[in-house]
Amino acid sequence: TLQHLFKQIFKASLELQEDDNSKSLLVSRKKRPENTVVQLNGDKIGNGDPKLIAGPCSVESYEQVYSVAKAMKDQGLNLLRGGAYKPRTSPYDFQGLGQEGLEILKRVGDELDMVTISEIVSPKDVENALDYIDVIQVGARNMQNFELLKEVGAVDKPVLLKRGMSATMDEFIKAAEYIIANGNENIMLCERGIRTYENATRNTLDISAVPVLKQETHLPVMVDVTHSTGRRDLLLPTAKAAYAVGADAVMTEVHPDPAVALSDSAQQMNIPQFEEFLGEIREQGVFKG
Amino acid sequence: TLQHLFKQIFKASLELQEDDNSKSLLVSRKKRPENTVVQLNGDKIGNGDPKLIAGPCSVESYEQVYSVAKAMKDQGLNLLRGGAYKPRTSPYDFQGLGQEGLEILKRVGDELDMVTISEIVSPKDVENALDYIDVIQVGARNMQNFELLKEVGAVDKPVLLKRGMSATMDEFIKAAEYIIANGNENIMLCERGIRTYENATRNTLDISAVPVLKQETHLPVMVDVTHSTGRRDLLLPTAKAAYAVGADAVMTEVHPDPAVALSDSAQQMNIPQFEEFLGEIREQGVFKG
Amino acid sequence: TLQHLFKQIFKASLELQEDDNSKSLLVSRKKRPENTVVQLNGDKIGNGDPKLIAGPCSVESYEQVYSVAKAMKDQGLNLLRGGAYKPRTSPYDFQGLGQEGLEILKRVGDELDMVTISEIVSPKDVENALDYIDVIQVGARNMQNFELLKEVGAVDKPVLLKRGMSATMDEFIKAAEYIIANGNENIMLCERGIRTYENATRNTLDISAVPVLKQETHLPVMVDVTHSTGRRDLLLPTAKAAYAVGADAVMTEVHPDPAVALSDSAQQMNIPQFEEFLGEIREQGVFKG
Amino acid sequence: TLQHLFKQIFKASLELQEDDNSKSLLVSRKKRPENTVVQLNGDKIGNGDPKLIAGPCSVESYEQVYSVAKAMKDQGLNLLRGGAYKPRTSPYDFQGLGQEGLEILKRVGDELDMVTISEIVSPKDVENALDYIDVIQVGARNMQNFELLKEVGAVDKPVLLKRGMSATMDEFIKAAEYIIANGNENIMLCERGIRTYENATRNTLDISAVPVLKQETHLPVMVDVTHSTGRRDLLLPTAKAAYAVGADAVMTEVHPDPAVALSDSAQQMNIPQFEEFLGEIREQGVFKG
Repeated sequence: TLQHLFKQIFKASLELQEDDNSKSLLVSRKKRPENTVVQLNGDKIGNGDPKLIAGPCSVESYEQVYSVAKAMKDQGLNLLRGGAYKPRTSPYDFQGLGQEGLEILKRVGDELDMVTISEIVSPKDVENALDYIDVIQVGARNMQNFELLKEVGAVDKPVLLKRGMSATMDEFIKAAEYIIANGNENIMLCERGIRTYENATRNTLDISAVPVLKQETHLPVMVDVTHSTGRRDLLLPTAKAAYAVGADAVMTEVHPDPAVALSDSAQQMNIPQFEEFLGEIREQGVFKG
Repeated sequence: TLQHLFKQIFKASLELQEDDNSKSLLVSRKKRPENTVVQLNGDKIGNGDPKLIAGPCSVESYEQVYSVAKAMKDQGLNLLRGGAYKPRTSPYDFQGLGQEGLEILKRVGDELDMVTISEIVSPKDVENALDYIDVIQVGARNMQNFELLKEVGAVDKPVLLKRGMSATMDEFIKAAEYIIANGNENIMLCERGIRTYENATRNTLDISAVPVLKQETHLPVMVDVTHSTGRRDLLLPTAKAAYAVGADAVMTEVHPDPAVALSDSAQQMNIPQFEEFLGEIREQGVFKG
Repeated sequence: TLQHLFKQIFKASLELQEDDNSKSLLVSRKKRPENTVVQLNGDKIGNGDPKLIAGPCSVESYEQVYSVAKAMKDQGLNLLRGGAYKPRTSPYDFQGLGQEGLEILKRVGDELDMVTISEIVSPKDVENALDYIDVIQVGARNMQNFELLKEVGAVDKPVLLKRGMSATMDEFIKAAEYIIANGNENIMLCERGIRTYENATRNTLDISAVPVLKQETHLPVMVDVTHSTGRRDLLLPTAKAAYAVGADAVMTEVHPDPAVALSDSAQQMNIPQFEEFLGEIREQGVFKG
Repeated sequence: TLQHLFKQIFKASLELQEDDNSKSLLVSRKKRPENTVVQLNGDKIGNGDPKLIAGPCSVESYEQVYSVAKAMKDQGLNLLRGGAYKPRTSPYDFQGLGQEGLEILKRVGDELDMVTISEIVSPKDVENALDYIDVIQVGARNMQNFELLKEVGAVDKPVLLKRGMSATMDEFIKAAEYIIANGNENIMLCERGIRTYENATRNTLDISAVPVLKQETHLPVMVDVTHSTGRRDLLLPTAKAAYAVGADAVMTEVHPDPAVALSDSAQQMNIPQFEEFLGEIREQGVFKG
């Protein structure tokens, strides 16, 4: 019948168009079938060997960062995160140490030979940050700060791009495209929970995003279990789920004394809790780092 | 200071109240610390040994159900799902075989010695269903159909309760409380994805719901990977995530020929795909059934 | 170019299909261009003259219902709502007076010659309710309780169908189609807020749903300002917005003493507040009832 | 009883804390009870006399902007919007004319003596924009681009701040606080729809946000009916609702030939449609401008 014919044409046209769209993106797996592997000193993200990224929410002092970093290094972990510029809902909340925070990260990174990751929130701070950190993080609130994306796309430094609070897969992928289109191919995507009606957790961890992003793009995909759940007691089970679903890395927060942390105090692990966490994910065999 | 004192009192009061609330629920782990284990013939759900539930979305014919069930049985699987009453968005969509569907399930269940699970959508059909199936499923659309909950609470048959499309943890737990308050303690909770803005998947699988529910209640918790993702290509990674996060069972859909299925054709596996799926989850070691 | 041609065919096919779908529904405006007007004694809903429906959340006693109804009648209002069967999240919350509630409504309705509206939650209670009330309400939690929809579709009594907590326009329209497909054409649709992440209000009033539903269907569309906002202080501005956007009626809750109400105490108006509310919407000229 | 006492203390503490929080914000109505009125040449926003802001989505050419502006001026309207910098999901979509766009706006504004409003997306472009436009718009994607907020907070030019895609009232208010805390008191808030599961409209217009924001802050509040609905056929009813709910202004998009528009072609009105729209809102009496 005519109607059936139209449906067939419709479906064919639809597929052609979708195909066409995703093929044209530089981040698309249709454009480049093999996985992008991001090199971070000796560590590789996206090579099939899942990693763990940890560190304090905010850089508060040299001692604070060093104590967490040392505990990590003792366990053979090299990927250290820490916030120097903190985007906060209220202008009256702690905004991070800024330049001093970057300097602390660099000092600790150099002393312990670790890779440092820190968020940059303004295009004008990108250039300067190159001298201090190894990976530039673009946070959830800035996922569609296109000026910042273009800026980090123009430098020679790996970028960790977090998914926006309510970004679709399509928007997330196209945000990454802003970076790659400006020349920077070293992009890692990070699912960090989306905003939903559910408030048992801070955000809702969209675990399916990992295989979707791995399928649609050739980029490494990681999961931030701290910001997605916002609950210390959920870090371990969700980290296990993230590794099981195929994430290239898990990111979490550790603080020497979470009770006095200047941000995110309810969801950071202290060092013994972190060591226990690490023991559990190693025992399960999903994390071999 | 006074303000600090008030904050302390506030926090204490808040905790007291919350404590009080959840303690009073019969499904609460505070009321009963040990896990509820639901017995289904030889199989146990909630005993720490994760299970797999499979079967066609809709019961369409004896042959269709038998072929799926036989493939399962050959693999040592005993938990067979199949829809006889189908709640459908449009009144003009296939509504299920009803009573005939129940009879087919019973026949196949008896022949192959399997446990059968099927959704009942109306209080008046509960009584009759007791003769045909081993587990009564209450679907997402009926999670707050309180008359139905009371009815299944009053019978001596395990109940599989699915989370509503946009139900909070609190609402889900209290829906289970309707069942237990009427006398039936054999309740299994099932996360099946929640409705969000994201449309890369049919719903958003809220993987954190599993540890939250395990912590708040003493009931077994499972994950329906078919309805949460709505995509055949995501069944395997999300099933792995579900087992890793601590689910007591995973539920999925299998059809001898998905392309001609009367419902959910895009997301059911055919039998060879199912066998491959099973091989993969067994290889990973999370599923030993 | 070929690509352009395909896009044209695609668009044409898409429109044809959508057209086709909505044309086939009995509730669709494409099927019947003129407005359905529901007759409720002397009052008409859907005739271009917007109405106001009011009454207590729950029927608690004859005196309580009578005092609200009398205040309404004194103001020339005839459409009285009141809950006899209350679907409540917890089994331990007040569940409504049931049959006694229906009897109270009938008595007050008869004494003051008013139209009574009350929610029925179970198919088995529909038949009995016909003797007591003038409009059967199907609540948000039951919008996809298809057995209930079929039952109210088979009786000769107007139905007020509320939108589900997270129902799409398409699902809402098809829920109405379940009713009309069973023979009952006297259906009124009610937007009552949808569940979103925002918690300044109980739900998010989706005001655009009114013109969308008026365009897609020939049914009257009303707005429940009480359940959508959950805040007494927002009843007046949202009622004005509802009338302005084209709603055929606004529904709100009034209680002689909200502080002691057995349900929804934070959002019901007391009688003087209601009279002030009424004065304001009359003054604005949008409500002439 | 003790429990009751605790509940009272709890409630009192809660209110004290909330009170305390909102009192300390400079944008809070508790801090300043009277309305902020933003002066834009002769026009005032927030003085109880609602306004209409219109113009093309993107500035495409002098002729395009002039033709819309002239049609507005002929109708006595002075508030002209137009996008020079366009934040677009894909890097391959039209990104706006940038500086050339600002120049066109200035030329048209000068020629017709109109107030011009345009979005600035990067802190570095704020300084330059001061010479060209009368109101700086901060778009939804940048609502939590705190560097940009600080920058526009430090200049002497009114700011139109749009609500983020999934921002809560609290986050929106605190984003405005970033501006006022840096010295700029001339802030207008704009509800522009939030992201929900519903896809009958582009976003879900949260109409209740208007009275909530008017109550919580002393700032003018407006509604963008174009981006919230994304549908030309819903502009009129939602504009009526916005005025009725108490908005200080409505914002909409007009293009001489929407079919060839470089952005938002499906939702802009052409000039005759706009004149009809204007006639209707004037006839209803809500808009007297």
